[in-house]
Amino acid sequence: MFAAESLVKTLLAQGVEVCFTNPGTSEMHMVAALDRNPEMHSVLCLFEGVASGAADGYARMSGKPACTLLHLGPGLANGLANFHNAKRAKVPVVNIVGDHARDHLQLDAPLTSDIVGYCSPVSRWIGTVCEPSDVSSMAVEAVQQSYGPEPGVASLILPADCAWSDQEPDVIKGADMPKRAVVSAARIAEVASQIKAAKNPVLYLGDLATQEAGIFTAGRIASALGCRVFMETFATRMSRGSSRFSAQRLSYFGESALEDMKDCDLLVIAGSKAPVSFFAYPGVGSELTPPGAEVCMLADAAMDTVQALSDLADMLQAPANPELAPRASAPDLDRDQPLNPGFVGLSLLRHMQDGSVICDDATTSGMGVYPWLENGPDHEWLCLTGGAIGMGMPLAVGAALACSDKQVFALCGDGAAAYTCQALWTQAREKQNIINVVFANHSYLILNFELARVGAGDPGPAAQSMLDLSNPKIDWVALGNGFGVPSVSTKTAGEFDDALVHAMATGGPHLIVAEI
Amino acid sequence: MFAAESLVKTLLAQGVEVCFTNPGTSEMHMVAALDRNPEMHSVLCLFEGVASGAADGYARMSGKPACTLLHLGPGLANGLANFHNAKRAKVPVVNIVGDHARDHLQLDAPLTSDIVGYCSPVSRWIGTVCEPSDVSSMAVEAVQQSYGPEPGVASLILPADCAWSDQEPDVIKGADMPKRAVVSAARIAEVASQIKAAKNPVLYLGDLATQEAGIFTAGRIASALGCRVFMETFATRMSRGSSRFSAQRLSYFGESALEDMKDCDLLVIAGSKAPVSFFAYPGVGSELTPPGAEVCMLADAAMDTVQALSDLADMLQAPANPELAPRASAPDLDRDQPLNPGFVGLSLLRHMQDGSVICDDATTSGMGVYPWLENGPDHEWLCLTGGAIGMGMPLAVGAALACSDKQVFALCGDGAAAYTCQALWTQAREKQNIINVVFANHSYLILNFELARVGAGDPGPAAQSMLDLSNPKIDWVALGNGFGVPSVSTKTAGEFDDALVHAMATGGPHLIVAEI
Repeated sequence: MFAAESLVKTLLAQGVEVCFTNPGTSEMHMVAALDRNPEMHSVLCLFEGVASGAADGYARMSGKPACTLLHLGPGLANGLANFHNAKRAKVPVVNIVGDHARDHLQLDAPLTSDIVGYCSPVSRWIGTVCEPSDVSSMAVEAVQQSYGPEPGVASLILPADCAWSDQEPDVIKGADMPKRAVVSAARIAEVASQIKAAKNPVLYLGDLATQEAGIFTAGRIASALGCRVFMETFATRMSRGSSRFSAQRLSYFGESALEDMKDCDLLVIAGSKAPVSFFAYPGVGSELTPPGAEVCMLADAAMDTVQALSDLADMLQAPANPELAPRASAPDLDRDQPLNPGFVGLSLLRHMQDGSVICDDATTSGMGVYPWLENGPDHEWLCLTGGAIGMGMPLAVGAALACSDKQVFALCGDGAAAYTCQALWTQAREKQNIINVVFANHSYLILNFELARVGAGDPGPAAQSMLDLSNPKIDWVALGNGFGVPSVSTKTAGEFDDALVHAMATGGPHLIVAEI
Repeated sequence: MFAAESLVKTLLAQGVEVCFTNPGTSEMHMVAALDRNPEMHSVLCLFEGVASGAADGYARMSGKPACTLLHLGPGLANGLANFHNAKRAKVPVVNIVGDHARDHLQLDAPLTSDIVGYCSPVSRWIGTVCEPSDVSSMAVEAVQQSYGPEPGVASLILPADCAWSDQEPDVIKGADMPKRAVVSAARIAEVASQIKAAKNPVLYLGDLATQEAGIFTAGRIASALGCRVFMETFATRMSRGSSRFSAQRLSYFGESALEDMKDCDLLVIAGSKAPVSFFAYPGVGSELTPPGAEVCMLADAAMDTVQALSDLADMLQAPANPELAPRASAPDLDRDQPLNPGFVGLSLLRHMQDGSVICDDATTSGMGVYPWLENGPDHEWLCLTGGAIGMGMPLAVGAALACSDKQVFALCGDGAAAYTCQALWTQAREKQNIINVVFANHSYLILNFELARVGAGDPGPAAQSMLDLSNPKIDWVALGNGFGVPSVSTKTAGEFDDALVHAMATGGPHLIVAEI
């Protein structure tokens, strides 16, 4: 048996069941091993940024790692931006990178590169297989490391000769995975008394605390205290909808975020750290802890945040269930209005089913959709955790694989969609229920705002041109169809609404261009 | 004056005149500086891999660096694969990466990352601006470092606050650039006597030695000795055509390469190092120096290879001009034949003008085009130096900018074209004379060969599926048109020939799908 086959069987035994891949010559024995082990669902991606983003989306929705199989340093390099998002999302990923055979490496052939160097900025663990006999034990270690205590990307570098080596089968069965540490009862009691002593405590949530169980418990605490609850602006996964407690999303711009938390005297943090602004601006501070507020860390992302919140709620004698807002009802649709992100939100509110998943890679437009779905159908809203645009369509590939019974939406700015539009091809190949909405404002719109905010002066024609995507205008219907995804352009609220209803009824992947 | 403006003016004073960019918030003062200095031609790219590939193409054709302006670690990460190709091409590039303001960096905002870590695998020099007053001197150092002695990528990390700082103008005028070292007369004499003593010397050329002046002189030596001359399989730039000495390209597969150089007893290397196979295969050696041959290093890529070859030719009393083959004449075109790469080569031979530039990112198909143009119209053939596919269309963007009076061709496999098809948009925006040929075999064809060669067994359905791009077939006409480039599909030799003639006559960018 090739060592590569022991590796694949060992991954399967640890519960790793999906491989997003773009292989090359040095990974051919891994390809053969995947071929012989069809229980591992292998998903071909046309570009590595699709594979890494899909692994992120899969982990966000399943809670467990997929593996990626990438070709040497440059293949890995193409996946790094979405691994950056996965790192910031704190999700488990097992990133397998093929390398040249060990004897070949020293010869510095054209594709030789510093793979450890490429891995380092995004990986919480890096292992290089030095002997074929180590393949399976290192695979187990990679899966364990991906789980944490704070989950992340575990990178396993696999020289071709360690994959092709013929050996006795060496398959390691299910191993123990690390668990998050529990916050002590004493610490819970301390936090509870700090909260009771505060006038205006505010809960600030990230990681697991914004997801179903966490947000439920945070809602119990909020109902007990009558306090404000904020989620990170770009949380990994926000569980939202009318059957969930409705926490607020902290505003993107720093001055608005400080206004959100005005008068707060105690910032209680669960699954995050003290908030900071996304970018720096001349003469403006970047720290967003409200002035005068004390910071109280209940649990960081390496801890069992959900348990900590639950213990805290019990100690505060919070009600068993949070107070919920009534289900939002959709206002009538003014069909002839020119389309804007709000109308997209309204259509989603009108037609979306409970349990849907929304991947948000639409910087400005996503902010316009978001409020409409508060207290609407239950859904999971996945944010651009690391700010590396080009995440939406790949993330949807992984999310749809993790929950094939659910409707997945990818909301993409046209600037972001242009980064990794190759994901559409994988959506078509895998016949995934993904509706991609491309907001075509033909501009890096957020940068128009930022250019003014940083005080770089009035933009002249060259600066404007560098933020402008209208010369030429990208024909997204052509691109979507070109990659095999039925695509349509919409310009009014009614056209979008009809297109959405049609796409949901037909199933499979669709692309709707929202001309805004 | 913003420090960023001093930086741009300083770059201009060093002869850096083109900036390939995809900026974000942290680069807005650089955008403003570019706006105020329109002598710097700023070219917007929809994806950073287009910017890095374009900088490579520009340098290969102009011999001098362009700069790139990329957004933080993830933006840089997206450019790394084509920087890997540029590193292997040994061309100068000044890679400017914006970073967060210095105070902001420690707060670990979502886009914070280890930019030095990302830069390291591809850069020959990395500098981080620590004070605004250092901006201009570090820009000069970056340009100098990009030139070498062995040229490469010089990365300059620019914190946003060092760009936005208001200061006295600090523009440094033209500085001295490093020159390549000259090979001593004594060493030339040694090499000459080694060559004279050898029975079957072979010249092996890379870097500048495969370009106009180098290949001319190598041809003089070959004419004097009657010896074989080989170029690296993936040389940076091969100057070819009937007015150039015709050197052979070393075969891709190792066994063929050894056959090429059979009976060689002295391998004389200029601008390269001893040849090795691209990949390793079980039980096969990777070193391609012919058995029993001595290796004689005339000049590596850090030396003045052209001068060394010229001195050697003189010492060998070589004729003043190389022997040239007669101009190749094109056979008649059998218009109704199903298209294959050879017919693309034939059409190029029939219609291409002297001085054209060909960017080859078509792994298997490029090999079919290549032989047709030997002794055809003069042209520059740019290879996939680092093996990171997705180079062709971006490289063409840069090459066309460096020589706007020339016709540029990008030969792309469909697998490779899918990586960085966003380059088409920049071609349309800049109205470049680029004819993109996409060879649509709907497969990673080379991997079908490699799977067999590495002995991974008969491919089953899952393995075949991972090398197959036909489900769904990409509609390249739709993609090209979607990005604003007139596109057409061709299936016969005659259809391709007509499409080529039409594209050359109309000018601007075109995409021709070669269905093979």
